[in-house]
Amino acid sequence: KKIAVLPGDGIGPEIVDEAVKVLRQVEEVFGYSFEFEFAMAGGGAIDRVGTPLPQSTLDLCKNSDAVLLGAVGGPQWDENPPDLRPEKALLGLRKGLGLYSNLRPVTLFEGMEKSSTLRPEVIAGVDLVVVRELTGGIYFGEKTRVKTEEGEVATDLLIYHEHEIERIVRLAFQIARGRSKRLTSVDKANVLESSRLWRSVVQRVAKEFPDVELEHMLVDNCAMQMVRRPAEFDVIVTENMFGDILSDEAAILTGSIGMLPSASLGEGSLGLYEPVHGSAPDIAGQGVANPSATILSAAMMLRHTFGYEEAAQSIENAVRTVLRRGHRTPDIALSGQMAVSTEEFGDRVAEELV
Amino acid sequence: KKIAVLPGDGIGPEIVDEAVKVLRQVEEVFGYSFEFEFAMAGGGAIDRVGTPLPQSTLDLCKNSDAVLLGAVGGPQWDENPPDLRPEKALLGLRKGLGLYSNLRPVTLFEGMEKSSTLRPEVIAGVDLVVVRELTGGIYFGEKTRVKTEEGEVATDLLIYHEHEIERIVRLAFQIARGRSKRLTSVDKANVLESSRLWRSVVQRVAKEFPDVELEHMLVDNCAMQMVRRPAEFDVIVTENMFGDILSDEAAILTGSIGMLPSASLGEGSLGLYEPVHGSAPDIAGQGVANPSATILSAAMMLRHTFGYEEAAQSIENAVRTVLRRGHRTPDIALSGQMAVSTEEFGDRVAEELV
Ligand SMILES: CC(C)[C@H](C(=O)O)[C@@H](O)C(=O)O
Ligand SMILES: CC(C)[C@H](C(=O)O)[C@@H](O)C(=O)O
Repeated sequence: KKIAVLPGDGIGPEIVDEAVKVLRQVEEVFGYSFEFEFAMAGGGAIDRVGTPLPQSTLDLCKNSDAVLLGAVGGPQWDENPPDLRPEKALLGLRKGLGLYSNLRPVTLFEGMEKSSTLRPEVIAGVDLVVVRELTGGIYFGEKTRVKTEEGEVATDLLIYHEHEIERIVRLAFQIARGRSKRLTSVDKANVLESSRLWRSVVQRVAKEFPDVELEHMLVDNCAMQMVRRPAEFDVIVTENMFGDILSDEAAILTGSIGMLPSASLGEGSLGLYEPVHGSAPDIAGQGVANPSATILSAAMMLRHTFGYEEAAQSIENAVRTVLRRGHRTPDIALSGQMAVSTEEFGDRVAEELV
Repeated sequence: KKIAVLPGDGIGPEIVDEAVKVLRQVEEVFGYSFEFEFAMAGGGAIDRVGTPLPQSTLDLCKNSDAVLLGAVGGPQWDENPPDLRPEKALLGLRKGLGLYSNLRPVTLFEGMEKSSTLRPEVIAGVDLVVVRELTGGIYFGEKTRVKTEEGEVATDLLIYHEHEIERIVRLAFQIARGRSKRLTSVDKANVLESSRLWRSVVQRVAKEFPDVELEHMLVDNCAMQMVRRPAEFDVIVTENMFGDILSDEAAILTGSIGMLPSASLGEGSLGLYEPVHGSAPDIAGQGVANPSATILSAAMMLRHTFGYEEAAQSIENAVRTVLRRGHRTPDIALSGQMAVSTEEFGDRVAEELV
């Protein structure tokens, strides 16, 4: 099993190291064998070879079974032109590998209630997954910028093909079927034509899943309900941009964005696994970053790409145990408790694996 | 002073009645004189005359000094084609009256902490205003829907002209100057060309306001920070769709969306004033709707269209006093307290006016 590892920028290398450490321990404990190959992506790649996503990196990913990514980006590249920005690596990987679905599970880890800005009774039982379309919509539609006599005009095209909607929606229904059988499809059908197409496709696919309870929700209302009654959501499916916004909002529900993993999948078993959070350049290199999200992303890799469900759960349980024992990085440390370092957290998770 | 009153659908008529009652009392107390003229808009207009925004209604609004709107919409019109949906009335009014800016102040009323799903210490001191661009962007760009051999394709064009960005951004800077001199401009400049134009215009206009502290924030991050540290925001300016999502999210911070007013303004003094919440058909006609947002929208009318600052504050203080005394509609009633009716709430606010 070949895993391409792209540490990226900022805290990326530190947190990826811990995830790799945990995967090595999985090899020991479960008798699996992984081959890790490291490559450049993001700002570092821009600095070294002049492009955020070198062809060699893309090729490596294509020839691997899974990709583990840290994070990309940093202020020094913020003023770069669009094609020379670290985020392009991410967008290029998604498109280049055909990873059209992004799964972001949001679960509340025991003892994390205190780190949330929401009241404990509101987040009790939060356990949802945002299924975001990842290779269509306004992210990849045509963009223009023209100078006219009255100043500049810029456009971005939000475009969806029926089949792009259908495949992500079907996946979401399948996921819902395996969970509590409730699906919320989020759109802005009262304004957008693409949302009206989205809704009609959802309605058509829904006929294949009569056992799943379907609800349509407008994106503005969803942004509100997410904070109002988050525990009532189970599976949320939505288009690319809405998914970007809503999943970041959802990420904060459970205390810290430092806890949340993600998986980006396509038609085959190849997947890209990365934390939801960014590269946090302000704390990079200090050994204080929280590697939980990346470690949990590795667990998602075992589940979705390799089908190693037991090992995946074993990682998740290990993270849960370490947190419960109060070993926490500074971002989620409780007052009066000594925080552990990035490395120490990884060590403890690895030790807990059984 | 002529005020066009569009009660609309659902709870619209009930809540508008209370706002008119309060404005009548303002006439008494402050010696002003308003002429109210009622007209149809929304679902009711579709049912009666076959269009959500009759020309006569639009004309009346054009010939008035201000428009007071209740709410439009309801499930019975949800399957209608785009042009026969109640929301079209709203979009038609915004565009037809040139109301390019939407102001949504979010303040925490004393004693409302308990109704919020966020922790009291997180919402303490929340006092922000979302300045949303209202007549441009993806709401009004070209929409297409075509059938191809591989199924349907739908598009929505997000388009911004420099001058559309400039006028809303300048307004936001002015508002920030009159408050705590902090402005957050929200975009998705790492993905959208229109956001990159937006950001460059913001940077240019910023030079005219060296006294205002400017910060750029990506929309996904903003959706997160809004729940994480809402009290740190002051003025937020953003494009149409992002503003729709973020202002609804912000609306929930302070306990109930039933409390939040809005003003939509253009070049002149004409403004449209409406609650942020919708028509709530499920509770319509029962006398339980919370008229606060509509009454506070009337206060915004006095402030922004008529320049009656004292009367505006008097309404706001009256609402505050009534709430503080514990007279609350069911949506925000505290446990163990008798809720008051829509009408009684309006009566009490009117009585408090001085
Ligand atoms: C970095 C950016 C392009 C990206 C996105 O908008 O998709 C990020 O926000 C994400 O959610 O993975
Ligand atoms: C009803 C709808 C078209 C409208 C919008 O999206 O602008 C509403 O959500 C609002 O925010 O006023």
